[in-house]
Amino acid sequence: MFVNATLMRGGTSKCWVLDARELPSDRDVLGRLLVEMFGGRDPAQLDGVGGGTPVTSKAAIVGPSATVEGQLDYLFAQVGVGTGTVEWQSNCGNCASGVALWALAHGLVTTTGGASTMTIRNVNTGTMFHAEVGQADADFTTGRAIVPGVRGTGIDVRLSFVDPQGGTTGALLPTGSARTELAGVPASLIDAGAPVALVPAAALGLPAAAGVAELTAAVPTLRQLRRRAALAMGLAREGDPIRDSVPKIGLAGPPVAYRTLLGEELGPGDYDLSVRMLSMTAPHPSIGLTSAVALAFLARTPGSILDTWLDPETDAPLRIGTLSGVLSCRLSRLDGHLEVTLDRAARVLAEAKIPLRDGVLAA
Amino acid sequence: MFVNATLMRGGTSKCWVLDARELPSDRDVLGRLLVEMFGGRDPAQLDGVGGGTPVTSKAAIVGPSATVEGQLDYLFAQVGVGTGTVEWQSNCGNCASGVALWALAHGLVTTTGGASTMTIRNVNTGTMFHAEVGQADADFTTGRAIVPGVRGTGIDVRLSFVDPQGGTTGALLPTGSARTELAGVPASLIDAGAPVALVPAAALGLPAAAGVAELTAAVPTLRQLRRRAALAMGLAREGDPIRDSVPKIGLAGPPVAYRTLLGEELGPGDYDLSVRMLSMTAPHPSIGLTSAVALAFLARTPGSILDTWLDPETDAPLRIGTLSGVLSCRLSRLDGHLEVTLDRAARVLAEAKIPLRDGVLAA
Repeated sequence: MFVNATLMRGGTSKCWVLDARELPSDRDVLGRLLVEMFGGRDPAQLDGVGGGTPVTSKAAIVGPSATVEGQLDYLFAQVGVGTGTVEWQSNCGNCASGVALWALAHGLVTTTGGASTMTIRNVNTGTMFHAEVGQADADFTTGRAIVPGVRGTGIDVRLSFVDPQGGTTGALLPTGSARTELAGVPASLIDAGAPVALVPAAALGLPAAAGVAELTAAVPTLRQLRRRAALAMGLAREGDPIRDSVPKIGLAGPPVAYRTLLGEELGPGDYDLSVRMLSMTAPHPSIGLTSAVALAFLARTPGSILDTWLDPETDAPLRIGTLSGVLSCRLSRLDGHLEVTLDRAARVLAEAKIPLRDGVLAA
Repeated sequence: MFVNATLMRGGTSKCWVLDARELPSDRDVLGRLLVEMFGGRDPAQLDGVGGGTPVTSKAAIVGPSATVEGQLDYLFAQVGVGTGTVEWQSNCGNCASGVALWALAHGLVTTTGGASTMTIRNVNTGTMFHAEVGQADADFTTGRAIVPGVRGTGIDVRLSFVDPQGGTTGALLPTGSARTELAGVPASLIDAGAPVALVPAAALGLPAAAGVAELTAAVPTLRQLRRRAALAMGLAREGDPIRDSVPKIGLAGPPVAYRTLLGEELGPGDYDLSVRMLSMTAPHPSIGLTSAVALAFLARTPGSILDTWLDPETDAPLRIGTLSGVLSCRLSRLDGHLEVTLDRAARVLAEAKIPLRDGVLAA
């Protein structure tokens, strides 16, 4: 038995995209199919097409919406590395940019040759996206767009998160305040795109542009703060098992001179805010798009911990300085909706037929 | 422009196999094609199908021999991770097992339904293999064979290295002796499959079944010993740049009780020799097959550092205890040839069409 799948790069993620119309809809069967396809039981995913790391162990199941004409439904799967399980609770913005290009390449969206626009709903979280894909070549692989954190070009995809505020907790500011304290450390807790907790780097004794080694040393402290943030945001209750996936947590500081992981030298005029996020239990090489969306809202929220460095009244895009470089995002109001827009690069990496072992889909 | 490629698992490696008949033969053009296909410029290979680690950034270009009827020519490429280059000097036995199954799946070798045998020449080093592939399903992906170091099953491939002695240096014992000293440390230097230097773990103050942390701490010492071994084996001259690829270097000791990386408990009766190899500058999770071949010869060489624990007169297979588990290899004489035989598991992971950006093959 074969499964058709397309390996897409979307921004800083690699994602296997599958056509929902060719697949079972039962989530358990889908999960077994993905674990088998990715080699998800093996700690390095040597026995499948998974990439062995969180940003390369992702899948998207995509099809036309059954209820809204012209809308695409995008189910995101984070396939575990070595666990044999699939996590269905989250959303991935980078993959959404790959999904947009895939939908064009596979004829789910028709184009007249120039830029193509579409609406995508993330099934996991209900988040709505608008995507605008630039003109592509016949193979959907050659373009001139780049993103920080990847050496390579792709087709430009402008991705907007539409009204993402409160998607998980029901409120943009789950504690009712733009600023709170976690174990004596000042923090801002916000829910837009994803629930995010941000603390000043200086409050942990770290420089604004901390490097991987300094961040790694701070992981135990950040995990404790994340746990407190989860309780404060109503994402967990005392006694619940500790989850490293929510909220996203990170450090913020003023723009300073630093050198990115890819060797680029940046100065304080090149960006607006230093940010260092955690990805589960390790420093994130850049920043998840959902976290960037939360920061775009937080930057415009008076009284947050970002107030020291940013003017919440500005209309300019927020330029976030990460380990891998600068990510720019813009919060705007359009037709009564709030949108956060980011520019991504996407391309087709492989069109594949993936064989599954006999009998793997049985429970 | 598309390239057809098949992602194979061969033993503990993942390898993209390409058909030589569809590709340019010029090594520089091939190298550019592979760098583009793998995303080889990016430090995590996010912009291509490479897996971002040495064991998942491998390619094989395979076709019928132009000169020997019924023989397959297998060119191995180690695609750099983040370097934008390809290394053509080495051979990969694990990939050879994937190549054997690929050749069956793609009709380069015909089968009558049972086990299939074939001869494969590694173009890079001249090493000859005999391969015997067990009966496969129609998709060449379902089997019952396993190898230590991977959670997953495959089709059994019995791989023999034929007369591998002296392939690189011209002599099985390049120094003329089974035992020498490197900076006061006893060592055995041997060339079969690949040039390998082995020292007793105890000579560096390490236990026989050292773990990853202990081995990582020993990397600087092992790199210094590798340099001295390269000079002693005629693989480098004073003043040459230091290479981490030759010879392979590792530690040996008696069999003891330990727990593998996949959690299996092993006792001293389960294997014959503790081995901990280096892969470039990090502990190897198991052992390269070419290194295992060298050890099969060394175990049968009187006067080596293995003499303390092994009887060189035995005809039994050598069971090598690695971080990931036990690899068994057998040295035998057949029709006047010396062969080292190992049992592997291989399977097709994906049949793919891979688009290349316009113009990437131009110099």
